[in-house]
Amino acid sequence: MSSLITPRTPSGTMELLPPQQRAFQHMLDVIRQGYERFGFTPIETPVFEMRDVLLTKSGGETEKQVYFVQSTGSLQQNEVPDLALRFDLTVPTARYVAQHERELAFPFRRYQMQRVYRGERAQKGRFREFYQCDIDIIGKDKLDPLYDAEIPAVIHAIFSQLDIGPVTINVSNRKILLGLAQAHNVSEEAQTQLLRAIDKLDKIGADAVKEQLQALSLNAALVEPLMALISQKGTQLQVLQALQNTACTHDTFQAGVAELRAMSEMLAEMHVPQDVVAINLAIARGLDYYTGTVYETFLNNAPDFGSICSGGRYENLAGHYTKSHLPGVGISIGATRLFDYLQRSQWQGLQHNIQHVLVANLSPALRADYLALATACRQWGLNTEVYLENAKLDKQLRYADKTGVPIMLLLGDDEKKNGTVVVKHLAKRTQETVLRADLGKTLAVLMGEKSLAVE
Amino acid sequence: MSSLITPRTPSGTMELLPPQQRAFQHMLDVIRQGYERFGFTPIETPVFEMRDVLLTKSGGETEKQVYFVQSTGSLQQNEVPDLALRFDLTVPTARYVAQHERELAFPFRRYQMQRVYRGERAQKGRFREFYQCDIDIIGKDKLDPLYDAEIPAVIHAIFSQLDIGPVTINVSNRKILLGLAQAHNVSEEAQTQLLRAIDKLDKIGADAVKEQLQALSLNAALVEPLMALISQKGTQLQVLQALQNTACTHDTFQAGVAELRAMSEMLAEMHVPQDVVAINLAIARGLDYYTGTVYETFLNNAPDFGSICSGGRYENLAGHYTKSHLPGVGISIGATRLFDYLQRSQWQGLQHNIQHVLVANLSPALRADYLALATACRQWGLNTEVYLENAKLDKQLRYADKTGVPIMLLLGDDEKKNGTVVVKHLAKRTQETVLRADLGKTLAVLMGEKSLAVE
Repeated sequence: MSSLITPRTPSGTMELLPPQQRAFQHMLDVIRQGYERFGFTPIETPVFEMRDVLLTKSGGETEKQVYFVQSTGSLQQNEVPDLALRFDLTVPTARYVAQHERELAFPFRRYQMQRVYRGERAQKGRFREFYQCDIDIIGKDKLDPLYDAEIPAVIHAIFSQLDIGPVTINVSNRKILLGLAQAHNVSEEAQTQLLRAIDKLDKIGADAVKEQLQALSLNAALVEPLMALISQKGTQLQVLQALQNTACTHDTFQAGVAELRAMSEMLAEMHVPQDVVAINLAIARGLDYYTGTVYETFLNNAPDFGSICSGGRYENLAGHYTKSHLPGVGISIGATRLFDYLQRSQWQGLQHNIQHVLVANLSPALRADYLALATACRQWGLNTEVYLENAKLDKQLRYADKTGVPIMLLLGDDEKKNGTVVVKHLAKRTQETVLRADLGKTLAVLMGEKSLAVE
Repeated sequence: MSSLITPRTPSGTMELLPPQQRAFQHMLDVIRQGYERFGFTPIETPVFEMRDVLLTKSGGETEKQVYFVQSTGSLQQNEVPDLALRFDLTVPTARYVAQHERELAFPFRRYQMQRVYRGERAQKGRFREFYQCDIDIIGKDKLDPLYDAEIPAVIHAIFSQLDIGPVTINVSNRKILLGLAQAHNVSEEAQTQLLRAIDKLDKIGADAVKEQLQALSLNAALVEPLMALISQKGTQLQVLQALQNTACTHDTFQAGVAELRAMSEMLAEMHVPQDVVAINLAIARGLDYYTGTVYETFLNNAPDFGSICSGGRYENLAGHYTKSHLPGVGISIGATRLFDYLQRSQWQGLQHNIQHVLVANLSPALRADYLALATACRQWGLNTEVYLENAKLDKQLRYADKTGVPIMLLLGDDEKKNGTVVVKHLAKRTQETVLRADLGKTLAVLMGEKSLAVE
């Protein structure tokens, strides 16, 4: 016999034990249901794309982090790989929309929840394989800015349902700072540097940002109002008021303010609590991709963990693949990273169980009864297994304990004779003997349901 | 502007448009719910494994079909890739169980529904990327043969729920033919060839199989009973009777017959209809991996499509990674391949929709009313979107038609004044004006639910 190979996963991947996997699955289910509740439809794309489709950009950081894929034959012939793993869901979605454009209804509301891959050096908190859960609303030729207000409403609904504690969805509109800069004749290059500097406010503080802005040799009359705006705290109305008081008549600036104001109004109409969404003009997001609204979401109890859900408005989704003009707005929940955090917190969802009933095996001669009990439980909608191995009860109890199944049914010769079943609630450490005819009722009470209907 | 890149997917992948994606997702949901109903717990593994973990076998067909993965840096330095995409879910599960053995409860009942990758030449009906939906029950040291009978019960429950038409789960036990061969002193090598020949019965017919068996220079007294057994048709009881009449006292043969008989009895106790499971001794399955029960499942209306769900009993899952003895039994549904077939058939599930309500936009001034309607619908559990774009009703109707949403709500100035809503059922081409207070009731009737409870 050959020597053993050490079983191990590649670094930078998250593999979960069954209880955690069930909790993670629960998280994905809640996210998915939230997306569907707001009328988003699912799409999935292949894990790999053609190299030229994926790497449309001229080199840069992205290409350095890509995983290339090639078959054994291609490798042996020293070919250049023509496939690569997706590094986000935005590029595959752009390709999807361009490819299937004529068959899609616009505005196209899609969600996509799949893993993405980054071939970067693995380090704490960084994953090489992780789930992204994206929604986007993509228009043909145009997309009303009002759609931007839907995104925080969806995210708020999902995070409330997940019960992960209070979060703050920070929103801004890049047109505001850019308009202000343009009003002061700041060059395009300096505009980008300006946004980069502001994006670091949380990390380096106001004084350091101000120094960096001054180093850009901006018009002195610009730095003060810029610093005032990005430091502005308060309710949505207060920040909007501060914007109204800012002396800037530039069209881009005014458009950004109007969009923010409309979003704020619509969020109230959607009953998103005022304190869940903060207008934070320091949220600039480094990516040049975004052209209007931007979002970043923080856990109030762990703001240093960084954004758990980010996105924004873009001017044109798929310019590399189609001449069609496809503006859109979207956001992405980093589910693997968020779960990594929740696993270390006291998140209630970690208790989520899908295992309901274990039918014990007290006597192999009663197998038909055990199978009948299980069939009844399954018809009541309970996830049920039968212990078929012929083993001592102690061993079966240890098994139940290890799997975390909450309810065990026991039936021996006495119960068979009396037409009863012993119902053992393992977590509550209680048990009762009930008539077989009353089993459904008893289980319904234990499972916290009003009644177990036969499906 | 640079020239456009043609948006396209790599060959051998299945990418679906939204209506088909929803139907496929529905299929996966039904499979998952079926697995959970029988007490299986989910696991997921990374898409890639370490090369030495994945490729434990000494070359052969598998290694020729593997996709290797390497980062940009690794590729540039001409390194040998140390990662490869999984080609099935069995190897990752073996690795998972060996790696986490001490934290798992045995028998370990897991399901896994993920995509797998085969770097083979793409051809019609063959996929390079496809979903497998696996269940396995894995024992520590031993696993009662009774667990083998659970598998067809799960599969039957799922395929009934999916409503894909009648299927026949063919079962056999490799011990039967192998025991018969061993009783006639057939060499190990010839045993393998014998099973391979028999596995081709459906394709090449009985005469050709008989010729191939004769070419193996088997004991003449073996060929006739072999041919009789593999050609045996009839009910489970009839085939079991034929086995009982076969003059073979070899232990392996007798063990195989006893296991088949026990499975047949237990399937009846689980109320799996007799005609759903056929004992078919010609089901040999080429893989050397299986040591007892084997399964193959065929669509009665399209038997030539081949098995849609196969598996069996194995002696030791993870011998490459651990000294622990881990026998198990499992089966895999090839979901992508099955869906590929169902898409071309009249499968009812293709109509599955998750989009329920579209709130039309007749007047931007009534936006708050539209958002309130949508919020109410969502609280009733309906997936609802609001058309926010300011567009003619015609365009909104075309949008509704293209997305396939069944219900549209219309509210203009008159309805606002009267406290009513127009409910348009797009598929039924009917519409009615109802009081806002009666909307929930009306929608409940249209959606075919008895009542829509506020969640």
